[in-house]
Amino acid sequence: MKLTMLYSFLKADIDLIEKELEMAISSSSPSLRDASLHLLQAGGKRIRPVFVLLAAKFGDYNIERVKNIAVALELIHMASLVHDDVIDNAELRRGQPTVKAEWDNRVAMYTGDYIFARALEYMTEIEDIEAHRILSNTMVELCIGEINQIKDKYRFDQNLRDYLRRIKRKTAILIAASCQIGAISANVPKAVHEKLFQFGYNVGMAFQITDDILDLTATEEELGKPAGSDLWQGNVTLPVLYALEDEQLQARIVQVNKHTVKSDIDDIIHRIKQSDAIDRSHALSQRYLNRALTILDDLPSNRTKKSLRDIARFIGKRKY
Amino acid sequence: MKLTMLYSFLKADIDLIEKELEMAISSSSPSLRDASLHLLQAGGKRIRPVFVLLAAKFGDYNIERVKNIAVALELIHMASLVHDDVIDNAELRRGQPTVKAEWDNRVAMYTGDYIFARALEYMTEIEDIEAHRILSNTMVELCIGEINQIKDKYRFDQNLRDYLRRIKRKTAILIAASCQIGAISANVPKAVHEKLFQFGYNVGMAFQITDDILDLTATEEELGKPAGSDLWQGNVTLPVLYALEDEQLQARIVQVNKHTVKSDIDDIIHRIKQSDAIDRSHALSQRYLNRALTILDDLPSNRTKKSLRDIARFIGKRKY
Repeated sequence: MKLTMLYSFLKADIDLIEKELEMAISSSSPSLRDASLHLLQAGGKRIRPVFVLLAAKFGDYNIERVKNIAVALELIHMASLVHDDVIDNAELRRGQPTVKAEWDNRVAMYTGDYIFARALEYMTEIEDIEAHRILSNTMVELCIGEINQIKDKYRFDQNLRDYLRRIKRKTAILIAASCQIGAISANVPKAVHEKLFQFGYNVGMAFQITDDILDLTATEEELGKPAGSDLWQGNVTLPVLYALEDEQLQARIVQVNKHTVKSDIDDIIHRIKQSDAIDRSHALSQRYLNRALTILDDLPSNRTKKSLRDIARFIGKRKY
Repeated sequence: MKLTMLYSFLKADIDLIEKELEMAISSSSPSLRDASLHLLQAGGKRIRPVFVLLAAKFGDYNIERVKNIAVALELIHMASLVHDDVIDNAELRRGQPTVKAEWDNRVAMYTGDYIFARALEYMTEIEDIEAHRILSNTMVELCIGEINQIKDKYRFDQNLRDYLRRIKRKTAILIAASCQIGAISANVPKAVHEKLFQFGYNVGMAFQITDDILDLTATEEELGKPAGSDLWQGNVTLPVLYALEDEQLQARIVQVNKHTVKSDIDDIIHRIKQSDAIDRSHALSQRYLNRALTILDDLPSNRTKKSLRDIARFIGKRKY
């Protein structure tokens, strides 16, 4: 079972969006186009466009109009990935021979800026200023989330509140905004689009918690990167926070730093998996999903509601 | 004579904008606030806010409303400076002991993103979607300009057209947009705000050409950096392009690369100053200024028009 199967009835519209994304990042500058296309072809679940479309189904669904909003939201997500990559390149550079030339990293930074700006151009297809306010607030929170993620690295004295605030900013708000702005673009009434924001927020929280669990429990093949990369890079995730409550585990985890070797990380991950940290993390993810499902109960009944319910449930169970 | 004296009658309003800029970049994240405040306190001519205000004087001037737009435009300029700094740090790192820690550069990148996002929040105080379209187009062009500037470094086979297109994107369009969006925020009629865009574009071109001349002719003290920094960093500016038409100078200039020593740069600059390259550059700047002044002739007569005229003239004569 794959997530994409849950929204297969949207396939034609998603394909349109895929084409438009390609158009969006085709620029007169060849190096810009190459860098962006590379990113686009790497694919992705297109979760944000899917939520834009499904939310718009609560109103006057017009694919030609809502398409622009879906493209805008996915471009913002892509731009933030590009800026994450700028950083990753910087780190790889330290030890690896596959060093990118200095100006490649600069171009990557401006490519991210360019994709952001293109997203804003697409957004102007929607005239409702409230949508623009939601998006700009979202982008502010996203940036603060990214900065906090950097600052909180290897800080093992942080608490659950720090973690939840960070994933809210980093992930949940953009999914919430996708739902709400998608709805606004289809003239969905305020009472409904505000609920869709809350739905997206709770699903987004569960989505990120699940991601953080999978980083420890999935295989390298499933993840496309070594398991435990988060901990190795100093990102303190929910299972790690729970594991820190165990004194013996805590003594091991707080030793982790930039110089920790892979075998130590593997051993710590093994112990975390033997503790109750994973189960407790799943439980918190489930609480967010339950809230999302409760919010759906208040929304007008239609076929879309069932899809949103299926997607929310899937997110809680997905294996990668 | 200082540029700021020409708009001293706007001082109270500029002071308000200065205060708002400080508010705008005060965030809950201390490192973000410190980095942004540092930039703010470094000052600047606040050219973009001045053009926003002056253009708004052609309509229903309301400082409380236009203030937000002036702040937005200056924040976008500041954000692009922050991203330029990310790059500069990277270069300084190569030889200097004052290396910034790796995560400082990451924070700098996200600080730039954050300031961009804050700018967008301020922009949403204006409901006219046309203003948002102009701004997002401007940002796209700005990014392409930045990327081209990196790609065109040390390319001495570029022509006048490449240079003009680059400075249009890098500098002139944002000044043009400041004029036009300022006007739109004050409900200035389309025929007038389109002229103000053209005025800003021509002034912006002259402004950048003058900057590029001063990089060669001003002293290190006036510039706050060594003279000829542009050429040393591989930025091919207008005087350099004109100098390349002289065979002997061309033979010297095309040798310039990352490893060229300062004394060689100084010698080349000395020769460029002896050629007609500086005078020809001034002449082209003057042509843009004349166009700007001609455009002003078509605008409604008021006190503001005189200020715009004075500022345009000053830009052509400024010594630093």
